Amino acid sequence: MEPFKIGIVGCGGRMGRMNLAAVAAADGCVIAGGTDRPESPVIGSDIGLLAGGEPLGIAVGDDPVELFAKADAVIDFTSPDASRRHADLAAQAALVYVIGTTGLDGEHQAAIERAALHAVVIQAANMSLGVNLLQLVTEQVARALDADYDIDILEMHHRHKVDAPSGTALMLGEAAAKGRGVELDSVACKARDGIVGARPRGEIGFATLRGGDVPGEHSVIFAAEGERVVLTHKASSREVFAKGAVKAALWGRGKPAGLYSMRDVLGL
Amino acid sequence: MEPFKIGIVGCGGRMGRMNLAAVAAADGCVIAGGTDRPESPVIGSDIGLLAGGEPLGIAVGDDPVELFAKADAVIDFTSPDASRRHADLAAQAALVYVIGTTGLDGEHQAAIERAALHAVVIQAANMSLGVNLLQLVTEQVARALDADYDIDILEMHHRHKVDAPSGTALMLGEAAAKGRGVELDSVACKARDGIVGARPRGEIGFATLRGGDVPGEHSVIFAAEGERVVLTHKASSREVFAKGAVKAALWGRGKPAGLYSMRDVLGL
Amino acid sequence: MEPFKIGIVGCGGRMGRMNLAAVAAADGCVIAGGTDRPESPVIGSDIGLLAGGEPLGIAVGDDPVELFAKADAVIDFTSPDASRRHADLAAQAALVYVIGTTGLDGEHQAAIERAALHAVVIQAANMSLGVNLLQLVTEQVARALDADYDIDILEMHHRHKVDAPSGTALMLGEAAAKGRGVELDSVACKARDGIVGARPRGEIGFATLRGGDVPGEHSVIFAAEGERVVLTHKASSREVFAKGAVKAALWGRGKPAGLYSMRDVLGL
Amino acid sequence: MEPFKIGIVGCGGRMGRMNLAAVAAADGCVIAGGTDRPESPVIGSDIGLLAGGEPLGIAVGDDPVELFAKADAVIDFTSPDASRRHADLAAQAALVYVIGTTGLDGEHQAAIERAALHAVVIQAANMSLGVNLLQLVTEQVARALDADYDIDILEMHHRHKVDAPSGTALMLGEAAAKGRGVELDSVACKARDGIVGARPRGEIGFATLRGGDVPGEHSVIFAAEGERVVLTHKASSREVFAKGAVKAALWGRGKPAGLYSMRDVLGL
Repeated sequence: MEPFKIGIVGCGGRMGRMNLAAVAAADGCVIAGGTDRPESPVIGSDIGLLAGGEPLGIAVGDDPVELFAKADAVIDFTSPDASRRHADLAAQAALVYVIGTTGLDGEHQAAIERAALHAVVIQAANMSLGVNLLQLVTEQVARALDADYDIDILEMHHRHKVDAPSGTALMLGEAAAKGRGVELDSVACKARDGIVGARPRGEIGFATLRGGDVPGEHSVIFAAEGERVVLTHKASSREVFAKGAVKAALWGRGKPAGLYSMRDVLGL
Repeated sequence: MEPFKIGIVGCGGRMGRMNLAAVAAADGCVIAGGTDRPESPVIGSDIGLLAGGEPLGIAVGDDPVELFAKADAVIDFTSPDASRRHADLAAQAALVYVIGTTGLDGEHQAAIERAALHAVVIQAANMSLGVNLLQLVTEQVARALDADYDIDILEMHHRHKVDAPSGTALMLGEAAAKGRGVELDSVACKARDGIVGARPRGEIGFATLRGGDVPGEHSVIFAAEGERVVLTHKASSREVFAKGAVKAALWGRGKPAGLYSMRDVLGL
Repeated sequence: MEPFKIGIVGCGGRMGRMNLAAVAAADGCVIAGGTDRPESPVIGSDIGLLAGGEPLGIAVGDDPVELFAKADAVIDFTSPDASRRHADLAAQAALVYVIGTTGLDGEHQAAIERAALHAVVIQAANMSLGVNLLQLVTEQVARALDADYDIDILEMHHRHKVDAPSGTALMLGEAAAKGRGVELDSVACKARDGIVGARPRGEIGFATLRGGDVPGEHSVIFAAEGERVVLTHKASSREVFAKGAVKAALWGRGKPAGLYSMRDVLGL
Repeated sequence: MEPFKIGIVGCGGRMGRMNLAAVAAADGCVIAGGTDRPESPVIGSDIGLLAGGEPLGIAVGDDPVELFAKADAVIDFTSPDASRRHADLAAQAALVYVIGTTGLDGEHQAAIERAALHAVVIQAANMSLGVNLLQLVTEQVARALDADYDIDILEMHHRHKVDAPSGTALMLGEAAAKGRGVELDSVACKARDGIVGARPRGEIGFATLRGGDVPGEHSVIFAAEGERVVLTHKASSREVFAKGAVKAALWGRGKPAGLYSMRDVLGL
């Protein structure tokens, strides 16, 4: 089987460079090319160096049309507006389109869904295999244990993160609430401060740490009299999201057009 | 419904006292009585004080026959030989018999199985709900993740523990191996020391900490490039084993005779 | 040297029983006796059983005067009002008086300080050796590392705790602030919730977990680009506070009258 | 004050690229240039791209003589033989020379020490500020706590590491032994496997985890009846070693010639 040709849009940014490196490191695929905004200082630079490796003889371009024409798959962690245009190109090219861009509004999302009529679209807010698996296991453990087990979710991220708790922490809270058959909003305690009283039975609590360059750590704690079960995910670099995206692209090869999630990719 | 009357054999020891306290603390049951060896200094003492609470007006006895006659269930964490006699009494009384005694040989085990023809016998080497759940989840996660995820199992126990890794750590290793479709013996590395070389792909490793009074902590680590998933259980006291035993006894109420495991109790 | 005779006031409560057990387990001392409130159901019970061991032939009394007369040291984790009376007795008996009672107001504290004119008084809100040591190390590490290291303090306690963050977490925050030469109040962030923005440089943050029966866990996290230093204390049972109190009592033997802290006991 | 000009030898390798990036990110310094082996594929590439940033208009060279002539400081994580030659150049240029190369024999070390007669030489096997601080704190805590506190050291590294326990784990063990006034060799237990018996009082144990891409995590655990104190260091990337090297270089500005350690840099 020929190597699968994967292109990266927005390849000059931190996440884009990691996507390049992840394609270069994976078996069964090669870098089809990469683009960045026309005003980006990396236009014309060698893609191999951007990927943190040796020169590959491919220069960074600024025309996504050209890239979508020659690629079998494209990975996109850019911005909502850029991704809308990329989604249109993906539909025309009928290729595998992996999108991890967040902050999409209804219109952006509609463009993604239209693209999925013609392209194999794989979309996820968090491309990490581990986090998607943890979400599944959290729901299941919450279903098996009753409210004698207090559920708290702890997360730590780097100092630049502006929101608390993280989107992934809330996603894990949703999974726990679903397992327990309740609505998260009705039982969530997002932070504790002051004389808050004894912990209400059934509460799902959150605690947030910030500091340094931590890419993301999440723990779901089930604490009862006498024991704790703790389910933890630690990302050691944003690389894990790039690896997930490449795995998704390779999985999409030969699939029928449609909108897929990381759970489909994982076979969960 | 009348409270369920639970008796404790060997109630003067550390584990026996915890079983008394767990029955006293649980809803839907009362202490039917307790026995200890005839030479035990606690014979005649008030059971409530032994349980760490207020006096109950019930004295510790030395005759299990009497106890099995008046109880609805009996919890037994004694010794293999004592448990064989208790199993015979359980069969005659056709009650709920929860046995957590370890170190049983074939003959002892045969007595347990004979008892299960007439009594509701619930047997487990580890009565903690959390550990039994962790075992299940470990198998499942090991099945979902391929050998890009290195599996290591870490455990810590108190300074008095004589064997390493712990039986529970090995049980978790078996679960991981089963999930991955391999034999634990062919991939296990029980400890690392010296120039051991790079980690072989597919290995399941163990690491053992000892110190203080830690009742038992186990982590199953799945580590890949870019992320880790860690499944952890922490027992905060031997009390958790007592709580599991009481939960098992209450679950057994009204069940048909037979041999059951904690997985049955948990509904897993 | 004769064994040191240690008495326990309030010996029927959870903490009192642990104090009895800690004296029984320590070398160089014996239980002088124990008292509880006149209406307590354990008056007259055997102290050895209360301590979780075998009968000792000493009954729980209700007269502290008698206890202070025959003891070399008394350990007191009762209530502010009871402790004021005990402090007066300690002064008269000129013995070693270890007080871990919290929630004292100015008048209570004045009574303690008067007692210290005649008795060897050792007072601490947290008798754990480990926590007192951690406080010292936190101050020192905060002094060595600059504000490139973000400081966050994480704590977990059982579900019954009503305040957040814990007093010990705040004490550790004070130590970190002192090491850094700032006032905790001017840099503290007690909890994070919502769009809080990037972490301000120099902030000292707190995060609070609640659940199960956790006796108390505290971590001080120093997180920079590229690394984290984490200083952690875990209490595995309230027993550790009892052990600290007994260590303090034994340390006080033969010392001149005065008011001492756990740092004195530790020689830090 | 003019920016300090820092050069990087071996700048094409993983560690060299991180050193470039760390100089680029730090205040008060600029990249003076970088060299690699003449046969390296990055000779002539732009140093800014190698550093993971934008082009800087400086090409990678192959002549260290030229680099030492124009730099104020040079950072060297190359190989023992290359470092011997660099040390000679450092002596001639009388600049600040930061050396993190490991595996040096007596002859290599002698060259380093000769260079320190003329240059400001800062040498450390581990340039991380955090690890050097942890070593100091470990010694201190081990001195404060007696042998009721069992000491175990846990470490985790990536799957490619060939030796166990890690050099840093052993260094921490030495610090603990020194604090306790014993020889590590006489009390160390490098791994536990099988029926090893109860933990001997005074033992210093080690446990080793391997997996994924973990750059290095170390914990020193002091476990007693009732409590644990745990001192932990986590490197989140090799970047931390680069940052330490740059900090050392900046610290060396204007110092008299001599051989210094990271403890000097940290002011510990």
